[in-house]
This record gives sequence, structure tokens and C-alpha cells, in this order.
Amino acid sequence: MRMKKFINDPKNLVPELLEGFTLAFPDRIRLRGTNTIVRATPKEPGKVRVVTLGGSGHEPGLSGFVGKGMLDSSVAGEIFAAPGAVKVIEALREACAGGERALLIVLNHAGDVLAGNIAMQAAEREGLKVKMVLTQEDISGEPGDRRGLVGCVAVYKVAGAAAEKGASLDTCLEVAERMERNMRTLAVAVRTATHPATGQPIFEMGDDEMEIGMGQHGEAGTGRMQLKTANETAEIMLEKLLADLGVQPGEELLVMLNGAGATALMELYLIFRRVAQLLEAKKIRLLRSAIGEFITTQEQAGFQMMIARMDPELTELWDAPADAPFFAKL
Amino acid sequence: MRMKKFINDPKNLVPELLEGFTLAFPDRIRLRGTNTIVRATPKEPGKVRVVTLGGSGHEPGLSGFVGKGMLDSSVAGEIFAAPGAVKVIEALREACAGGERALLIVLNHAGDVLAGNIAMQAAEREGLKVKMVLTQEDISGEPGDRRGLVGCVAVYKVAGAAAEKGASLDTCLEVAERMERNMRTLAVAVRTATHPATGQPIFEMGDDEMEIGMGQHGEAGTGRMQLKTANETAEIMLEKLLADLGVQPGEELLVMLNGAGATALMELYLIFRRVAQLLEAKKIRLLRSAIGEFITTQEQAGFQMMIARMDPELTELWDAPADAPFFAKL
Repeated sequence: MRMKKFINDPKNLVPELLEGFTLAFPDRIRLRGTNTIVRATPKEPGKVRVVTLGGSGHEPGLSGFVGKGMLDSSVAGEIFAAPGAVKVIEALREACAGGERALLIVLNHAGDVLAGNIAMQAAEREGLKVKMVLTQEDISGEPGDRRGLVGCVAVYKVAGAAAEKGASLDTCLEVAERMERNMRTLAVAVRTATHPATGQPIFEMGDDEMEIGMGQHGEAGTGRMQLKTANETAEIMLEKLLADLGVQPGEELLVMLNGAGATALMELYLIFRRVAQLLEAKKIRLLRSAIGEFITTQEQAGFQMMIARMDPELTELWDAPADAPFFAKL
Repeated sequence: MRMKKFINDPKNLVPELLEGFTLAFPDRIRLRGTNTIVRATPKEPGKVRVVTLGGSGHEPGLSGFVGKGMLDSSVAGEIFAAPGAVKVIEALREACAGGERALLIVLNHAGDVLAGNIAMQAAEREGLKVKMVLTQEDISGEPGDRRGLVGCVAVYKVAGAAAEKGASLDTCLEVAERMERNMRTLAVAVRTATHPATGQPIFEMGDDEMEIGMGQHGEAGTGRMQLKTANETAEIMLEKLLADLGVQPGEELLVMLNGAGATALMELYLIFRRVAQLLEAKKIRLLRSAIGEFITTQEQAGFQMMIARMDPELTELWDAPADAPFFAKL
């Protein structure tokens, strides 16, 4: 089937989408250089800066989370591709321009990690005070080889809230690492999307199949199975997540459901309903939740389920005010 | 192609999705009876209540806009179908239980209007003080026969903000009608969705076609054409909207882009970019904007473009704080 997207020249996709994004939120964000999104009103001098990087085509992620209480800047790459390390170095230099320290949050994908590592080396040579945290919570991979999925949003939230309160870089890093260590994500896909630059399907899938464990760009998961109901899908995924995180009765969880693109919010409500029922039956407390489209993959159908073990400090940081274009808390 | 949705028994779709929705936002909303969503914390006694009604399957609309500064309650129907008038009467009775007055906002679709009118007659018999406003801003129909599309969200916003400030019912009605009179919407579709209860495609469309003027449920528009680029699509739609509203240079507009479901936010950014360029060239001021998924049609691809002529009072009401699950303003 022919690609049916509202685009112009595929070569200009990223500059055009970043221009449209900044025009839509002129009170909140600015485009710096060709591909870095920064806050319209910078954070107060001296406070830790929180920076991320990642490919485009996943809107609202990642740049939609630049704003008060979350990110200070986001370096956008090409469609499904990491930004160049040079752009990341420039963003870190700007973040630290007033002598501030910065936390760089990177999702574990090869290109992103490479760009992050090169930028960290350059930052060290230049005497910038930057620390990096890697998010790697996708349980479809073995520990040590896990991808970063929607959990990055929770890390942005708690690290961003800590930084906004004036916490030190070490404290922001500790909070980010604690959130990261205590979260797990699993994805499911039922229908592919087309790559907006090439017009090709991202992966192939049969009419009655679903795949659990698929990555953000259609990377293979743990195997195909027959399409399941909402309840069955929720059960399969939640059980795997609870087991991997080792959740015990009495513990308190944050649950995020992230629509891939074409899966309706209606469906996520059905999944969430079953998750809430299952947690209640297991005497695990559903403390907080977030449901919507945070990091998408074009018109792919499917979703990511994320659970995170919360403690009082992480909960307070999660609840703190935020005002990013696609994540607001009063 | 087989329907690939995460659902259980299609007969239970609406109760299950409303249960999931309320479980996801326990601090903000409650389910009252079988299908009415109300605020978790009611508005202060004496202030005007703002109520809406409409079919399900369009999430986050309409119940996602129940919250401080917007709606007090939303009566949900079956998938793509109006709720029964009895449920609307019950919601109005509850809204006015403390002697308050209420504004009922109804999108112009036959079933919704019927339910609204019957409920208004019952309310009058019972001595309730309720006024109704109809949103009918879809320019693909002739004046007098226009459907209500995403513009309802702007009407919820300004009427809700006025009510929150303690305005009288007459003032809330006047503000809602002024917003309604000054807004225009046009939809475009490029790919159909499947009806989640029947599994059937909502409409048929060729691989290289798009249709401008399509309704919220696949109602026919003003004709098929070859698929266009983002820029061309933005130009065609904006020109029609500006002409219909009679916008002059120097005027100030709110622009909303509402994704139908499977059209990526990336694409909406591209459309928005061209809208901003065109308005600037015409010396029309892009005063405010909102971009995202507000009222969807399952996994349909396409979007709605809404423009509204703003004045200082409408702008102040648009900017006022709001805290609904899917519409927050700090």
C-alpha cells in the first residue's frame, strides 16, 4: 500500500517538523541551531541542566518533554537515527554556559549511546561537569543488553523535578538512576508503520499476529503469537514485568501505557482496566499512572507497558509541577 | 484485513473503557451511574455547571475534558452513538442538584441533538435552569446543516473558564455562542478505521486518495482527490476556512489541529508549519494554537483543522487555568 502521510520532501522532514513544533509552542520552546530544542525561558542560573538526545519520528518524544520541571534541552536526530555527537557536544556546552552542571539522559540504542559517549568525552576535555545516565528497561532483552523505551519519560520527570528544586548533579544522577533501576517496560505490536523517509514498512506481520517485545523501531521481540484480547494481552505483559522487577505484595507502582501511534486511547483504557484489576488481586498498589502517546513509532499499532517501583521521594518528584508541551502537571 | 485492536467482548466496550478511564485518573474524575463522567472534586456550589454528551470511540473526547476550568460532566454514548436522553436528564439533574444552573454543549449530530432536545424539555418541566448551545462549525456542510467537530473543545474551554470564574449562565452561554460563531473546522481523511464493535471499515478509500470534508464518523465530504503533500493540504484547507469565516488581515486566530488517530504528530507539525507561514504572509496573526489528538476516530488517518477568530475576552478565557485529564493549562 502506498504511504499515506502528510509530508513534503522526505529529505526535509526533520527541519520542517522541528520548525512546526517550535511554531506551535512559541511560549515554551525555541529551536537552537538546526536540531536542538531548548526552553523559551531558561531555568534559573546555577541549577542542574537536564539534557537528552534521540531520533525523530517518535513525536511527541523526545523534544515534547522540554519544559519547566522536565528537560532543559533535547537534541533531535534524523528519522529513527541518533543525532551527531557534534550537536550533542554543542547542546552540553550551551547547557553549561553559565558554569552549570548537566545530566545527560540517553536511551540505550547503539547510535544514541555512541553519540552520548563521544559527547561525554569531549565535555570532559573541555572541563564541563556532565554526568550521563543510560535508560535500559526493555525486558525483552537480557540484562545488560536492554533497550530504552518509554521509561525515559519517568526519568526526565524525576530528574527534572530534582534539578528544578536546586538539587546537586550527584543527587539528580542518583534520582535518575534509582528511577531507571526500578522500572521495566515491555512493548507489543500488532501492525507495522511505514518509514516516512523511505515509504517502506518497518517490519512484516501477519493479519492475525501480534509480537511481544518489539523495539521502538520494529526490532524483533521474543516471538510472534496469535492476536489476543485486551485482557489476555494485559495479563501476559504485566506478569512478565512483575516477575522481572520482582514486585512483592504491598509495594507501590507507577504504571505507564504508551500508545505506539495507531492504537486508540480506547484500547489503552481497556488494557489499563485489566492491569488495575490484576494489581488489586495481587495486593500491589497502583500508586500513579500515565496513559497516552509519549514516544510513538509513526502509525504503528501496539503499545508499551511500563511499571516502576516507587518510593516516597520518587513519588514526590513525579508529582512535582511540570510544564512541557506534552507533559503538564499542575 | 482482520481488525487488530486490543479489545475484549465488543458488547462491553463502553463500560470497560469508562472503567479504565476512571481508574487511570482517580484524582480527577469519577464514573456516575453507568456512563456519566464527573469531576472527582465538584466545582464550588452556586457556579454554573458545564455539561456535554456524545458517542464513545473518540477518546480522549469527550470525557477527557472533564476537569477544573472545563467540563463538569460528560454523558457518554455507545461507540459512535449518542447516549440516551434519560442519561442526559439524569446528568442535568445532578449538575443542578444544589440549585445551580447548567450549560449543555452539544455537537451537531442528529442523535446527539435529539438526546439534548429531549433532555432540555424534561429539564424545563422539572424547573431546572439549563441552556443549550449547539456546535456546528464543519464548513463541508452548508450553513444551517453543519456538523460539530473539534471546535467543541474550544467552546468547553471558554465556557468552562467563565463558569469557573463565577459568571452567570447568560454570560457562559454568550461566551460559548461567541466562540462557536467565530470558529470553523474542516477535516481530511486518507485512510479508514475499523468500527471496534462490528470490525467493518468505516468507509472505503483508494490507495492514492484523500477526502476533504469527511465527518467524525466517515460521513462523506466534498469529494475525493489525489493525495497531496503536507503543504498543499494545508493550503487547500486553510484557504477554505479563511474564506468561510471571512478573516481579514490584522485579525487574530486560534488554530487547532486534531489528529484523527493514526496520523502522526510529526505530520501535524508539518501542516502547522505551513499554516503559520501562510497566515504570516496574509498578515493574519496566529495568536494561540493547540495541536494533538482531541477527538479521534479510532485508527483513521487524517486530521481536522480548526480556526477561530479571537477577541481579548475569548483569549483570556482560553488562557485561563485548566486541569482535565487531556487538557491542562497552568
